[in-house]
Amino acid sequence: MTPEDLDHDLLEDAAETSGAATEAVQESESLDEDNRLKSDFVRRVQDALEAGETDAVYDMVEPLHPADIADLFELIEPDERLPLARAINDQMSVDVIAELNDHVRELLLEELPAGIIADIAEQLDTDDAVAMLEDLDEEDQQAVLAEMEPEDRAAIETALAYPEESAGRLMSRDFVAVPEHMTVGGLIDFLRDDRQLATEFWEVFIVDARHHPLGTCLLSWILRSPRTAALTDVMKRDQTLIPVTMDQEEVALRFQKYALISAAVVDDDGRLVGQITVDDVVHIIQEEASEDILRLSGAGDGDINEPIRLTVRTRLTWLLVNLFTAMLAASVVGLFQGAIAKFALLAVLMPIVSGMGGNAGTQTLAVVVRALATNQITSSNTWRMIGRELRIALANGMTLGLLIGSGTALLFGNPLLGLVIGSAMVINNVIAGLAGILVPVTLDRANVDPAVSSAVFVTMATDVMGFFSFLGLAVLSGLAG
Amino acid sequence: MTPEDLDHDLLEDAAETSGAATEAVQESESLDEDNRLKSDFVRRVQDALEAGETDAVYDMVEPLHPADIADLFELIEPDERLPLARAINDQMSVDVIAELNDHVRELLLEELPAGIIADIAEQLDTDDAVAMLEDLDEEDQQAVLAEMEPEDRAAIETALAYPEESAGRLMSRDFVAVPEHMTVGGLIDFLRDDRQLATEFWEVFIVDARHHPLGTCLLSWILRSPRTAALTDVMKRDQTLIPVTMDQEEVALRFQKYALISAAVVDDDGRLVGQITVDDVVHIIQEEASEDILRLSGAGDGDINEPIRLTVRTRLTWLLVNLFTAMLAASVVGLFQGAIAKFALLAVLMPIVSGMGGNAGTQTLAVVVRALATNQITSSNTWRMIGRELRIALANGMTLGLLIGSGTALLFGNPLLGLVIGSAMVINNVIAGLAGILVPVTLDRANVDPAVSSAVFVTMATDVMGFFSFLGLAVLSGLAG
Repeated sequence: MTPEDLDHDLLEDAAETSGAATEAVQESESLDEDNRLKSDFVRRVQDALEAGETDAVYDMVEPLHPADIADLFELIEPDERLPLARAINDQMSVDVIAELNDHVRELLLEELPAGIIADIAEQLDTDDAVAMLEDLDEEDQQAVLAEMEPEDRAAIETALAYPEESAGRLMSRDFVAVPEHMTVGGLIDFLRDDRQLATEFWEVFIVDARHHPLGTCLLSWILRSPRTAALTDVMKRDQTLIPVTMDQEEVALRFQKYALISAAVVDDDGRLVGQITVDDVVHIIQEEASEDILRLSGAGDGDINEPIRLTVRTRLTWLLVNLFTAMLAASVVGLFQGAIAKFALLAVLMPIVSGMGGNAGTQTLAVVVRALATNQITSSNTWRMIGRELRIALANGMTLGLLIGSGTALLFGNPLLGLVIGSAMVINNVIAGLAGILVPVTLDRANVDPAVSSAVFVTMATDVMGFFSFLGLAVLSGLAG
Repeated sequence: MTPEDLDHDLLEDAAETSGAATEAVQESESLDEDNRLKSDFVRRVQDALEAGETDAVYDMVEPLHPADIADLFELIEPDERLPLARAINDQMSVDVIAELNDHVRELLLEELPAGIIADIAEQLDTDDAVAMLEDLDEEDQQAVLAEMEPEDRAAIETALAYPEESAGRLMSRDFVAVPEHMTVGGLIDFLRDDRQLATEFWEVFIVDARHHPLGTCLLSWILRSPRTAALTDVMKRDQTLIPVTMDQEEVALRFQKYALISAAVVDDDGRLVGQITVDDVVHIIQEEASEDILRLSGAGDGDINEPIRLTVRTRLTWLLVNLFTAMLAASVVGLFQGAIAKFALLAVLMPIVSGMGGNAGTQTLAVVVRALATNQITSSNTWRMIGRELRIALANGMTLGLLIGSGTALLFGNPLLGLVIGSAMVINNVIAGLAGILVPVTLDRANVDPAVSSAVFVTMATDVMGFFSFLGLAVLSGLAG
């Protein structure tokens, strides 16, 4: 290989991630100060598309980074997406396709014959190809796989055989592994000469004859060591090995905990089969944290590009569950209809007690769900955390109870009513605090994702107990006698 | 420098991140299958601490990774933390201190004289030292800075001069920058010979005489190029430059969007002043996404290690704001006291309408807040998104309205009541959907963090309109006549 060959190779690589990256930090024609596509730019692309000026569209899109082209697809109307893909034809690179939102990509892929999709899949890294193909239905997937080169097909079929959201689906097979007898100089010569290797990698794995990892070398260690040094003296023997079946959320936690840039993936026999790099993990961390907020709210994936009927179905399911608990709470109020008929002020005040309990419960729930997700609450400190939430609930409940109790007593000239609502407020805040931690911790121990179902139980507890404690105390105290 | 020197250096480095990393993937004495410290291990450490067996504590902690030692501090009782720090003395490395939760670290630092803290700060990377010192109060900070070597002090003072949560606080000054005339071979020789350089880095920046970045070289490109190649031919000219004042959330979005491992930080004059690496950004992505869920719930930072009085204050503030809106909603009910006294069933059913609206509003809110945070909603697609939410709200509202309406009509043998609650349900769902998107989008345009204050307005809207639409329609229809 001549230097020119490699230079050309690298420059091509550099050219791929074009001008947009540098422009991104200053004002540009297409990006605003927050690095989002400007709306007048998007509008001009849309106008040109509508007018059928495909050359103009092509020229406008050309300076964009692939990530921005992908954003552009998401920002325009769904029915403009195919015309845009046609207009920019060869700019529709694999990098753009890898960056596209799943739903938008699916819409574009539906229009393409299996052969073209297979061509795209062959150019993508295994992990990106898997991400693209795993959403297709079985039949289309088979059709695409049948069109692929045997080697690429085998790689993808192997990856698809691993469970969804596992390390096996996430890993790339383009890693650099060398035998243990090499020197630093020998390794550098090998890296220079082998045309097949990836151009971007961060560490070199050292393996034995059975392909078991022995150690790892960051590239900076290699560059700072003399040529004569043995790799086994430079490498780090202890490294984080990711089992191929590990869940992606767990993988992300390992990357965070040990500040990893890349890590080796091993199969059940301990053989090196792939590598995961931090750029893939960054997306997962983002997704998993977002997932918690969306699930707690019952909004499913919360993907704004999802077809509307899917969104309706997901959200409606959650609302129906909540309708059931709302009726349960209403039936508690129903028990006190007589008291309310006699003293309608009770109906005016009761939503304050249940609503404030709901707010306090949501606070605790959010904190606990995040702490569970990041392994901050374990069986070692669960009791301490329960005690902590209880003390917070008491402190807040008493403050709120005192406020609303004295306010009510003064406003309606009814000290007994003030005492009743104040006490109900304390009780419901304690219920909220306890439910807010006990429900997610219990679900977590039972291996149920606490983000998915906790909110229903907590709201049910605070609604039911809010109404029951307030109306019950009112009746007991003879207020509605 | 002899090879032995460097090897020793690197091995030391490797030894720092000890056995725990590899053990982490298999069953170990201290870690469970989710890589969390086992509770019986924590218990044994606590027992040994209580019995004053410091040597036993030392031996138990020794095999742990610094990240796990930091976790151990968080899992034990607050009053056990200082004794633990004393027992493990020299294992209390800077890596452990860098990994500690802010509040836990503060508790430990309070007990240390300024001189010792200064020693620790000097050993830390600038960004970690800044993270440690920025939380101290002004006076303690000055005392520590006064004890530091002038050079380290200057670096930290410069960093502290940048706004909180800006790139300037996040960046490290340990980067590798070389002049443009170098060849690949010259660079490798320079890296091998310079003892001062960091041992871990991912790219080399090429700068001009005024220290302006000209390009960047990934280490893998350097290793794959011939020694004679000019750096200017190997480097990529376009790179993402991070302005030193950029907000950390924005920095994290850039890293995600362009899949960066590290990036150059430049000052106002465009001079290279630091570098940010992805491992620091990973924490920010996690934090920022968690922040949204915690703020939406009014739980502040949601840090379980925070002193309890701070937590009480944060949550109480939010609850007081909500108390105000709850009273507002109650006053709407108050308008209809007469109707409720005549027909108490209205009080039984009204929480269903307001509660379901609250749930639907929360769903939309969670989706919109996340989409805004990740730049997925911009002015280009705001109207389309509003239309989308409106259609979802109508679909769900009509389904729920039909269900609850017909159920009520049948259960209470009152078709008019069914019609009233069904219609109110549709109205409140539409209100919920509109408020769920309009409130956060408006706040975002006004540069207010939509996660912080949206929920109050949305809940107020669904509570007030839930009661008003249901009770109002009931009166209008003559139900409570």
